[in-house]
Amino acid sequence: MKRIVKSILLIAFLSATTLIVRAQKTDQLNFTSAKMLTLIGKSEETPTIYDRIDSNKYKGLPPRVAQLLTNSAGLAISFKTNSTVIGAKWCVSKSRALANMSPTAHKGVDLYIKKDGKWQFAGIGRVSGVCNDEIVISRMDNTEKECLLYLPLYDKVEDVQIGIEKKAKITAAADPFAKRILIYGSSIVQGTGASRPGMAYPARLSRLTGLNFINLGLSGSAKMEPEVADMVAAIDADAYILDCVPNTNPTLIKERTAYLVNTIRRKHPKAPIIVMQSIIRESGYWDKVVGETVKNQNINIQQEVLALLDKGLKDLYFITSEKMMGNDHEGTVDGVHPNDLGYERMITHIQPLIVDILSKYDIKDTR
Amino acid sequence: MKRIVKSILLIAFLSATTLIVRAQKTDQLNFTSAKMLTLIGKSEETPTIYDRIDSNKYKGLPPRVAQLLTNSAGLAISFKTNSTVIGAKWCVSKSRALANMSPTAHKGVDLYIKKDGKWQFAGIGRVSGVCNDEIVISRMDNTEKECLLYLPLYDKVEDVQIGIEKKAKITAAADPFAKRILIYGSSIVQGTGASRPGMAYPARLSRLTGLNFINLGLSGSAKMEPEVADMVAAIDADAYILDCVPNTNPTLIKERTAYLVNTIRRKHPKAPIIVMQSIIRESGYWDKVVGETVKNQNINIQQEVLALLDKGLKDLYFITSEKMMGNDHEGTVDGVHPNDLGYERMITHIQPLIVDILSKYDIKDTR
Repeated sequence: MKRIVKSILLIAFLSATTLIVRAQKTDQLNFTSAKMLTLIGKSEETPTIYDRIDSNKYKGLPPRVAQLLTNSAGLAISFKTNSTVIGAKWCVSKSRALANMSPTAHKGVDLYIKKDGKWQFAGIGRVSGVCNDEIVISRMDNTEKECLLYLPLYDKVEDVQIGIEKKAKITAAADPFAKRILIYGSSIVQGTGASRPGMAYPARLSRLTGLNFINLGLSGSAKMEPEVADMVAAIDADAYILDCVPNTNPTLIKERTAYLVNTIRRKHPKAPIIVMQSIIRESGYWDKVVGETVKNQNINIQQEVLALLDKGLKDLYFITSEKMMGNDHEGTVDGVHPNDLGYERMITHIQPLIVDILSKYDIKDTR
Repeated sequence: MKRIVKSILLIAFLSATTLIVRAQKTDQLNFTSAKMLTLIGKSEETPTIYDRIDSNKYKGLPPRVAQLLTNSAGLAISFKTNSTVIGAKWCVSKSRALANMSPTAHKGVDLYIKKDGKWQFAGIGRVSGVCNDEIVISRMDNTEKECLLYLPLYDKVEDVQIGIEKKAKITAAADPFAKRILIYGSSIVQGTGASRPGMAYPARLSRLTGLNFINLGLSGSAKMEPEVADMVAAIDADAYILDCVPNTNPTLIKERTAYLVNTIRRKHPKAPIIVMQSIIRESGYWDKVVGETVKNQNINIQQEVLALLDKGLKDLYFITSEKMMGNDHEGTVDGVHPNDLGYERMITHIQPLIVDILSKYDIKDTR
């Protein structure tokens, strides 16, 4: 009995210690609302700051699409600080954990800092509940640093604050990325299998190229509905990447691709449009129905693009997906979504192709 | 109001449909207890089948080590079946989600099937609660297949069952991996940043080499305590890899390395012992204390190994970690633990070195 009491006391003491350490951590910091800093990665201005798009502006959007537009995928806070410690506070919803997503990618944040002209990962903010309050990195030198804090990929975020030491300064920084390349696509764009927000492929492409790749990933819902096509076309961008094959089926691809591409073309007569095949689903190497579906999706999207080119549509490009995931079948989280290894291979495949196309239109980081 | 009622009815209908589909899925399968099949990846036989080691056999183990030995990291079920569908049932604990782990790696399962002499990923079992009941892959052809179902990396598992079609057959298969190479180490061995159980690096090395790499990863607790050293040395293996630098500190490395290596050597006079430096922690590029600590850990482990070699210890090898994680700083989940991309780079670095060392001792897959 004595032993049990001792154990309980020990647990109580340890819990108290943990609380004190935690409280001290954040008490030492001054927090600034991210609204005072620079928000990057947005498709357009919105009344609710961390929404990607104001779904009320567009008629007839499927409810699930409207909901996904409130996820902060691809958004990041750009700031400069000389603080040796950087903390973050942010609130997310109570939505349930997803079996194939790391909680940090789902609802957490991660920080990059520029070093010798390159963006370098610095730390994560671990999600532990609805409102979170975390030290992301500490004990750095006190030179001024250019920072990017990526917001959660799969949740609606509120009340984002950046914490710095009391004696340090924080200022809004410019958007570090040039031009605007919209990527409309599925969960693979939104970032299901990424280990943290900054590892979603549009974010990686931005850091690698200096260009602003905007994440319009709509998990499970990138189905090229005419209403969504109208919304995509209404977004002002220098180029459009359509990675929306995975969520459709072969018939819908036949029905909807031309409308999507033509609608973008009408609104943006000179902008390059790059259509991507779906990655080959790993599960499709075993599941004959899945294998056949992806094959037909990819045949049909190729036929649609070829038909549009035949009709004289200009500035339209096509990226095939063969070998995009390597050849060891280890590049997915779940047979569908690339893990960080799969994303690496995907980027190795598509980055030179995309950069080459964009450079023809003078869409490059000239700074 | 009408609309609300309609929505509620629709939700109720959809929920009911989901339940029916789910029930049908598993009703179509016959389940076999994994106890009737072949369990691989164990350090030794244990009274509780899915424990890695029977902690009661060893005196004075730290309580956290004893608890971690009940995690099923590295264990897998080996079987053959001609079923076109494979399902799994398994139960885990109620332990909380970890911010830096995918739930599938933490508490889920994943399946590999041999194809053209190579192990190929086929699907995951998504964890959704304490007891789970999932289709892993379906609609395959009905040839007989050799399968490996990996168990959760970070939880205690119970009541594992494999489901097949009612008309199909399932039999225990042999352990597909030759010899025994024990890897004693930290969370990096246990697999924190892997996206699913089969992506932990010992499991990947086994599939890549045909050799049996045994996962003795003890997250946060690979501290080379003398009692743990005695346990490691008591395990019968053909080779010993010590990747236990990350959880120690520079002083403990000085105090404990020689005892660990000498104890293994006394029990296994001819077995190669490979000591690994810690990967450079990404957070240490920013956090000066972390950076300094890892540097000193790696200097000290090198000095300890050199001192042992100086004293004439034979069959002792050392792997340095410089550039093990590449040079783009994208290889971790959280600044500490490799993600699947980091593991890929780590394997690219260590696999040829390890295979080369082991081949000198005729530790190779000769089948």
